[in-house]
Amino acid sequence: MRLLIIGSVALDSIKTPFGKADKALGGSATYFSLAATRFASPAIVAVVGDDFKVSDEKILKAAKIDVSGLQKARGKTFTWGGEYSFDLNSRLTLFTHLNVFENFKPQLSPAHKKSRYVFLGNIHPSLQIEVLQQIEKPKFVGLDTMNYWIEKTPKELATVLKLVDVLIINDSEARQLSKEHNLVKATKKIFLMIKKNSTIVIKRGEHGLLLFGHGSSMFHLPGYPLEDAADPTGAGDSFAGGFFGYLAKTDDVSWPNLKKACVYGSVMASFCVEAMGTKRLEKISDGEIKQRIKDFKNLTHFDTY
Amino acid sequence: MRLLIIGSVALDSIKTPFGKADKALGGSATYFSLAATRFASPAIVAVVGDDFKVSDEKILKAAKIDVSGLQKARGKTFTWGGEYSFDLNSRLTLFTHLNVFENFKPQLSPAHKKSRYVFLGNIHPSLQIEVLQQIEKPKFVGLDTMNYWIEKTPKELATVLKLVDVLIINDSEARQLSKEHNLVKATKKIFLMIKKNSTIVIKRGEHGLLLFGHGSSMFHLPGYPLEDAADPTGAGDSFAGGFFGYLAKTDDVSWPNLKKACVYGSVMASFCVEAMGTKRLEKISDGEIKQRIKDFKNLTHFDTY
Repeated sequence: MRLLIIGSVALDSIKTPFGKADKALGGSATYFSLAATRFASPAIVAVVGDDFKVSDEKILKAAKIDVSGLQKARGKTFTWGGEYSFDLNSRLTLFTHLNVFENFKPQLSPAHKKSRYVFLGNIHPSLQIEVLQQIEKPKFVGLDTMNYWIEKTPKELATVLKLVDVLIINDSEARQLSKEHNLVKATKKIFLMIKKNSTIVIKRGEHGLLLFGHGSSMFHLPGYPLEDAADPTGAGDSFAGGFFGYLAKTDDVSWPNLKKACVYGSVMASFCVEAMGTKRLEKISDGEIKQRIKDFKNLTHFDTY
Repeated sequence: MRLLIIGSVALDSIKTPFGKADKALGGSATYFSLAATRFASPAIVAVVGDDFKVSDEKILKAAKIDVSGLQKARGKTFTWGGEYSFDLNSRLTLFTHLNVFENFKPQLSPAHKKSRYVFLGNIHPSLQIEVLQQIEKPKFVGLDTMNYWIEKTPKELATVLKLVDVLIINDSEARQLSKEHNLVKATKKIFLMIKKNSTIVIKRGEHGLLLFGHGSSMFHLPGYPLEDAADPTGAGDSFAGGFFGYLAKTDDVSWPNLKKACVYGSVMASFCVEAMGTKRLEKISDGEIKQRIKDFKNLTHFDTY
């Protein structure tokens, strides 16, 4: 099934207690597609500037990602700079320069308009709507957003929320959106804001995630306990990529398969944080993915005879 | 199998955003035994003062807890006062008065000396050792401790750590004990401090727990997502009670059964926080326990075909 991601391709400057990276390939579309490509054939819709390196484009192409929707514009590529605390649990944004992203008006190709699985990465809600309207017959649409849009564009966000099948946000965003601290209560309120029979994924950083949907069903997955986490940048987008990649591959959005998709997403997120930037995602073997699925099972399952 | 808990029976003053309780029945031995009694026959070794109410003793007796080791001393019962933050995730200790606990020298009865499963609640490590030395042939010994003993009595704590089969502590205590922030690394260091082939349970509050042991095996359980948490007091001791109660009932300390014991412990902890103090623990039906075990399974298991 065709899988499309609209999001950012960025040059990130990251500082962690264990290392740093300058102008490293990043952005939500990058992490999403590097994770999704292990299961499906994702296409990116994004924009980069003149400073975008051929070597970075090669990384995406080598991973068999469809970059035909990656526009090149005059100016600089979107850049983000951040610094993490000693335990990697909080981060300070040092700068965000939208650059070429500021005037980005995505025009989808005929092929991309036929996408069935669509992920609307964390960008302006109006842009998310604009892209979604170009898709002819979307089957399953996901959305990410952030505190900035919750505060600044609540009306536009309310509109796009009604159009998506799964909302993937973190716990603080869920609390902000619902004005409820308790996550079960928060989710109940958010269900009233989104399309009927949709699903909500609440990401909780190293504490994993909660999946809500299909009546009052709940599913929880822990973050994989790692001895050497290096860099959380992109973990959320890698989750979404693994999640959507698995759904697009299996073309099955039943509750049991949504749970499995969460496992595939969490596996990709757990690899993502093992090295700086996209480095680990670029070179995971199929065997490693299989093994970590097993590890997640051993970590979470118990006998129920 | 005989199950013994040495710990506190206390009169707690609790304030949460949702209510308050004054001089309410509490203490580690109380919560532990109220949870354990659903699966095994726990005996309490503790001390109370003249102010301990007959009605509180009746609660323990009605729950079929062996209170023959509950000494009565002249003076006041151990009291603790605490206030919780609006989200129940942090608490301020307002006061701790050891009272009759200060001069407590437990002398075990011949029957109690024959206990096979023993839980050393969070008290002075020397007292924990003293009790353990009176047990003739302990099969499986658990230990709780806290920051106070880690700081003030490191030598005594080091001695008792070498004698236990399972250490049950929270994440901040694990970090303090090991001087490592990362919990996987912290656990590796703590394994060097405890008896060979022992097990470690790291409690993470609402985020659940991690069980480490048997080689490099790991198991995770989330906290049960509750819509209306009322009071976290005693949740950790209720976990330990359910965990030990189930182990004593099945008399099986294999890795798969330790995982199951964690589920029973977490079920009892999740009930505990649903009302102030011991109120919810006092009246859980067998059907409710069965249902929540199922709920935990649905919450954590995924298809792996």
